[in-house]
This record gives sequence, C-alpha cells and structure tokens, in this order.
Amino acid sequence: MAEKVKLASIGLGRWARVLARGARRGTVIELASCFSRSPESRAKFQEEYGVPRAASSLDELLSDPEIEGVLVTTPNDSHKSVILECLDAGKAVYTDKPIAHTMEDAGEIARAAAASGRPFAVGHSARRLGGHRAMKQWIDTGKIGRVSLAEANFSNERGLELTTDTWRWFADKSPGGALIQLGVHHADNLQYLLGPAAAVSSHARRLYTKSEVPDAIMSILEFDSGPLGYLGTGWASPGVYQLRLQGTEANLFYDLDFNNWDDSHLADSKSTLVSQAYRESVRPPVDMPHTDMFREQLDEFALAIRGEAEIEVGALEAIRALAVVHAALESSQRNGESVEVGPMVERAGAL
Amino acid sequence: MAEKVKLASIGLGRWARVLARGARRGTVIELASCFSRSPESRAKFQEEYGVPRAASSLDELLSDPEIEGVLVTTPNDSHKSVILECLDAGKAVYTDKPIAHTMEDAGEIARAAAASGRPFAVGHSARRLGGHRAMKQWIDTGKIGRVSLAEANFSNERGLELTTDTWRWFADKSPGGALIQLGVHHADNLQYLLGPAAAVSSHARRLYTKSEVPDAIMSILEFDSGPLGYLGTGWASPGVYQLRLQGTEANLFYDLDFNNWDDSHLADSKSTLVSQAYRESVRPPVDMPHTDMFREQLDEFALAIRGEAEIEVGALEAIRALAVVHAALESSQRNGESVEVGPMVERAGAL
Repeated sequence: MAEKVKLASIGLGRWARVLARGARRGTVIELASCFSRSPESRAKFQEEYGVPRAASSLDELLSDPEIEGVLVTTPNDSHKSVILECLDAGKAVYTDKPIAHTMEDAGEIARAAAASGRPFAVGHSARRLGGHRAMKQWIDTGKIGRVSLAEANFSNERGLELTTDTWRWFADKSPGGALIQLGVHHADNLQYLLGPAAAVSSHARRLYTKSEVPDAIMSILEFDSGPLGYLGTGWASPGVYQLRLQGTEANLFYDLDFNNWDDSHLADSKSTLVSQAYRESVRPPVDMPHTDMFREQLDEFALAIRGEAEIEVGALEAIRALAVVHAALESSQRNGESVEVGPMVERAGAL
Repeated sequence: MAEKVKLASIGLGRWARVLARGARRGTVIELASCFSRSPESRAKFQEEYGVPRAASSLDELLSDPEIEGVLVTTPNDSHKSVILECLDAGKAVYTDKPIAHTMEDAGEIARAAAASGRPFAVGHSARRLGGHRAMKQWIDTGKIGRVSLAEANFSNERGLELTTDTWRWFADKSPGGALIQLGVHHADNLQYLLGPAAAVSSHARRLYTKSEVPDAIMSILEFDSGPLGYLGTGWASPGVYQLRLQGTEANLFYDLDFNNWDDSHLADSKSTLVSQAYRESVRPPVDMPHTDMFREQLDEFALAIRGEAEIEVGALEAIRALAVVHAALESSQRNGESVEVGPMVERAGAL
C-alpha cells in the first residue's frame, strides 16, 4: 500500500489504547488524530501513541479531510449519535462491541451505515482467535461430527470494581451488565460456529456487585441448526474465557488465559485448544492458526476503506449478537421462558 | 468387625459388577448371594465375584436369613416394587441412582424405608469424589469467597448405542434420558455444594439418538443460596465429567477422565482440580482427599447396618436430585419457563 490508511480514535479510554496498540502492530494504519472531551486525555493519548494531532470537538475531527475512518470506543449508549455523525461526515466507522445498548439504536446505526455506503465494522473480535478458527474448521469439515452441546463462559471481576463514575454501573446505559459487555462476544462466537440462535432462555442475578446491573447471567440458546448452547457470564470472579463443543466424533475444549486479553498478539500462545476422542484419556492439542484479533480486525477495516478487504463482522452479525443479549434479558424477566431471537432482531427495524 | 456384613446383589448387569468390585476393595462386605431372572447371569456373576450362592427368585433371596442388606441395580422403573419387597423382608437397601424414575415411586420408597427403620442408601456416589470434597471445603471455609456461577456437565455416548433391548431406550422407563441417568449425579453434587435448588429452567432435545429419550439437555438451576447453576448432559459425544465454581475469591475447575468412571479407586488420580486466583496465569492443583466412591458408599451402608455409620445420601437427598430432573423435564415442556423444585418434591408425598 502506497500510503497508510489514516484513522482517528474517538473516546480515549482503556479500550482505545488496546486498539491503538493493535493498529500499531500492523503496517496498514496510521492513527492520525483523536478526540475525547477531556483535553488531558487527548494530550496523554497523543503522547502515548504518537498521534500527530487531536481535535477539540467531534465536528473538528470529522471536518479533517485526511481522516478516512474512525475507531469509536465511547460508552455504548453514545454509539448511535457519534456513529451517525461520523457516517454523515463520510467517514468509515469501526465501533467497539456491542454495536449499541438497544436494538433500536442498533437498527438506526445499521441503516445509516448501509445508506452511507462506507465500510462499517463492529469489534466482535473474539471469533478471530486461533482457537475459534480451528473449531469452525472442525465443524465445517465434519471432523467433530454433529454438535449437540456448546458451552461458553466469559467472566471477570469488573462488577466488584464498578463505581457510579462509570457508565457501566447504570442499567439504562449498559443493560445486562456482564452479559452485554462480555457475554455478547460469545453470542457472536456461538452463532459464528453454529449459525443463528432461534431462542434464548435466561436467568440474571445481581449478587455481589453494588451496581445496577447483573453480575451473574446464565442463558440457554436454541440453535436453528439443532444444538443447544450455554452462555455463562459473571462479573464477580477471576477472569474466565472458555468455549467447549461436544460432537458425535470428538469434543473440543478451548481455554484462554484472560490475563492476556488485551494483548491479542499473545492470545493464541496463552490459550489451549485440545480435542477428545472416544476412549482416549490423552487430549492432544489442536493445531490453531496464529492470529492477532485486534490487529486483524483493524487492518481489515482499513483495507476495506481502500476496497482491498471485506468486513467480516458488520451490522447484521452485531445485531444478531445483541439480539441474543436482549432476548436473554427479556427471558430473565419472564422467569426463563424462551424468547425468540428473530422478533428481537426485527425490533431493530428494517435492515 | 468380627464378621463381614452379608449383602446380596439384585440385578446383575454392568453396574452390579462395578459395585461388586467396589465392595471387594473393602474389608467390610461379603457378597453372599445374588439374584437376577436369568440363570446364566447368576452363574456368571457367581463365578466372576466368588458369590457362594444364587437365588432363583427374589422371594428365595429375601427369605435367606443370613442376608442383611441388598444392592439393587435393576432398571429404574422396577426400583419401587423390588425395594418395597426387600424392605418388607427386613433387609437394608442400597439402590443405584436415581432412587426411582418418578417422584411418586420415589415417595413410596422413601416412606417404606422410613417405616422399616432399616438403613436405606442411594448411590449418589459422585459427591464423594476427592475433587468435590475439596470444593465443598473451599466453600465451607470461605476460601473460594462467595459463589456466583456453578457449571456442571456429565455426558457420554450412550444415546448413540441404545437399542430397543435396553430399558434406557424408553421414555416411560427412563424419562429424560441422559439427564436422569447422568445429570442426576450433578443434580446431587450441585445441591451438596450449594444447598437446595429452588427452580429449574431447561431445554431438552432428541438430536442424534434413535431412542425415545433426549440426548442433549441443558438446565439452569436457581439456588436458594443465591448462585446460578448450569447442568449440561449429553448422550452423543465422548465422555465428559466436569464441575466448575466461580467465587469472589477464586475459581475452581474440576475435570475427571470419564474413561475411569467405573474404577472409583483410580478416579482421583485421573482427575484434576485446579484453582484460579486473580491475575495469576498459573492454576495450581488443589489438594484433594483420596477417595474411592463406590467402595466408601457401600462400606458406609454395610456399617450403618451394624449401627457403626450414618448414611450420607438417603431418600431425601435422592428425592431432591430427582426433583431437579423432573422440574427440568417439566420446564422443557413449558418452553424453558422456571419450574419450582419444592412442589416437585411434594409430588413424592409426605416424607
């Protein structure tokens, strides 16, 4: 590529830093500008990541003709207004997951992205982990046989640390707590592996967090393709990231050391994926492609701006993941009764 | 003990053999007689386990004054009639899990056992595994902190092998398939660890088995004590036996090599129990007591006959485990809506 793709970071918290480091590991992206409301945050981010300029308003950033695309990591409930402004200014948009906090906002974003004709990507990066790529291959080639049960868990201690200073404390900004922040990754992973979820049964509890949102959520997913899926998410324990598949030919067990979550170039080397055959006690490691999920998704986004790549996770995939979250939350209000995912997707409106 | 406790095996299939080997590893029990309908089975069992005599009818076995107790491993739907006869004859009774296939039969058995005043034990042996004993200790001492999520899975390939020759094929004899045969163990384990389950949400699928019963069942348990529990059971994959706990201070991961299930003296050495602390990537092994679940439960039963031990898992614990199974099956008929365990226990009648 003759020239790097010039992107700007919007929202300069912890996740903007993780993405900036991911982009820096590649050769495609130049972080050319940044914006957050706090001048101190802007200065610090510029210094840390060698970003040549900072905008003092979103308008200023968006009127910069050099900026081809933006990386949005603002709070979930601000995604719609920020993303719509960015698309309106002709910028391509990458946004952190979930696409939005509500189905309605997600629908508006999806329609605006489609209308703009600009690349739009959502950070459901986890499906890119080497372990999940290998699992998908075992399913597609039939090596695992036919899958009956899929179990996933993504948990950490965030719920115990939340304060009223953070938007994640509040139910109207982050409905579902651990489920919408962590579980939504597996809502995408499981559908990536097994196809669309048809319905979800769920129970949610606010056990040990002082915040307004649940810190223990368990859901059962019914897949159109047949299997049942379990999605566990907690916010009150040491970090867990696991996914297991049980097939008629083999089982696969994936376990990632959550301590390395932010450093996605290390994730595969800090993960184990083993297979289990009938009557074998030894569970041999499974070959995984080497991946760097944050770098790869950002490179893909940047290359898509140049017409040299296709976006793997766009609005539709992100809406399907969010619909599982909201179906789960509705089910948890209905005593666990199954809630269909299809009508929840439709709540986003015409896509 | 001056003299060994004389027991007799009733039902001489695979499980009678597993128990016979368990009893033989101890020094308390003498298998003095046996009965099944087939003369060939009786002769073979006598020869294999050095059993001095065999009865040609249940009546004949029960009229043998030397026999102090019986080990019942007949099909689940015959438990009630066999056990009631045995109790009526004044014999102490150990029965394989589940206590019965229905709540009503379970209640009748429980009342008959209480009325008889004889020791009555149910083979929910798995809670005796060293790993589960250690988990219980971590909960009781507070070392794990407060538990939010508990996940359990017990699966194997049995559903793929079933034929109409076996009672497990039929929904009226083995309702719930993998759930009542395998999952019922974890229904006991989880309640042993976390106290009574209040309600269960469940989905059951008949995916790959040709039999009448489900081979994929996922349930969410709501515990009176607060945590949520997941219970996965499958009958269409290589064998899985796992239990995980997530606490505010630590996580515990237990994984048993199912290939050794029958040889309970080896189970602990074929299991791993590791703990996970915050921000630690190394998961150190947890000290487990050495156990031999089948031997221990049989020794306990035999010693209880002599007044030298107390039964750990009697009718009440077994009924609570079975009630989780039936609440799950009812929930699966009601689209996952939570079904309370208490009223299901009451279906067994006054206990």
